[in-house]
Amino acid sequence: MLDVAGTAHPRRRRADAERSIASIVSAAVEIFSRRPDASMTEIAAAAGVGRVTLYAHFPSREVLLEAAVEQAVAHASAALHAADIDDGSAVRALGRLVRSGWSSIERYQGLLAAGGELSPARLRARHAGVLTRIERLIARGQAAGEFRTDVPREWLVTVCYSLFHAAAQEVREGRLDAATATEVLEATLVVALTSRPGPADPR
Amino acid sequence: MLDVAGTAHPRRRRADAERSIASIVSAAVEIFSRRPDASMTEIAAAAGVGRVTLYAHFPSREVLLEAAVEQAVAHASAALHAADIDDGSAVRALGRLVRSGWSSIERYQGLLAAGGELSPARLRARHAGVLTRIERLIARGQAAGEFRTDVPREWLVTVCYSLFHAAAQEVREGRLDAATATEVLEATLVVALTSRPGPADPR
Repeated sequence: MLDVAGTAHPRRRRADAERSIASIVSAAVEIFSRRPDASMTEIAAAAGVGRVTLYAHFPSREVLLEAAVEQAVAHASAALHAADIDDGSAVRALGRLVRSGWSSIERYQGLLAAGGELSPARLRARHAGVLTRIERLIARGQAAGEFRTDVPREWLVTVCYSLFHAAAQEVREGRLDAATATEVLEATLVVALTSRPGPADPR
Repeated sequence: MLDVAGTAHPRRRRADAERSIASIVSAAVEIFSRRPDASMTEIAAAAGVGRVTLYAHFPSREVLLEAAVEQAVAHASAALHAADIDDGSAVRALGRLVRSGWSSIERYQGLLAAGGELSPARLRARHAGVLTRIERLIARGQAAGEFRTDVPREWLVTVCYSLFHAAAQEVREGRLDAATATEVLEATLVVALTSRPGPADPR
């Protein structure tokens, strides 16, 4: 539908723009996951849009990377929902969180590597969707007496976030075996979240 | 001393270059620590060299940042030497490592923030000087039966490195109180390094 000036109707223009944005972000997630150093041009081609359209929506590689990370985090959050971490023993739920979270990390390893171009603060901000779920699990575990309460809850969220991403980096750089990463992560997070320095420790 | 072509003697030129490099790196450590977004021009001015000299030695901000981080890590490593972490109880030495390491982190907070511009792999590579010391302490604690041996030693080094830097980021972004950061770090690292998931854990 054209208006009197011969341009597309605003509502249609908006719908077109939304479709372009969705295609670009999906292409960015897929392409960065396979090749972290993919160029903007490659992503425009994969999304079936021109460079002008790409840059109209995503003025820099950084902005596009942030949108791609946010979409991957949304997928990871949906996977966590399916992993059912909101009920039963918090320690066992932590095990399910590690397995679900690690399978998301493996799927998006390349994107995470590309995400290293973002500042740590921006990268973390785009993870809000999963950080909220982790915080809810920790609050539940603390209320049930399963998780420690001697350090701030927000810090325990950070311990999970940091060690997940540290393990991903270790695997990328060949210092940790991908096959044992979930066991190592779970063995580390369980004690980091449940134990506290005991009176027996010679401090 | 001039040679027949009227240019400075190679040995003198080399000594001049080394002095310039040392001034630039020291200025970069100091200026970035105060203002993470400082420009190359500001650093050239603080070092008392021209922009041409600066770029001759450090062709990009990234290369200069890496040199600055490496120098700060060398200071942190010297501080660890003074903290005497190579003898006595490994758990108590871990406490000294946390206090010494944290005081280095506080001193170089701004530089660490600027270091976020480097890829995680390059940032970690510049930390080799302290990672070696941490690994030595962990090996000692494992040999003495104080530290866990159920996860790879290299992973425990990564846990220390990651949580130190995560705590620094938390403080920078106002999510963790700087005054309690050493206690929180020590309380987390002691259990992460000494405990292992017990048979009592309902897994």
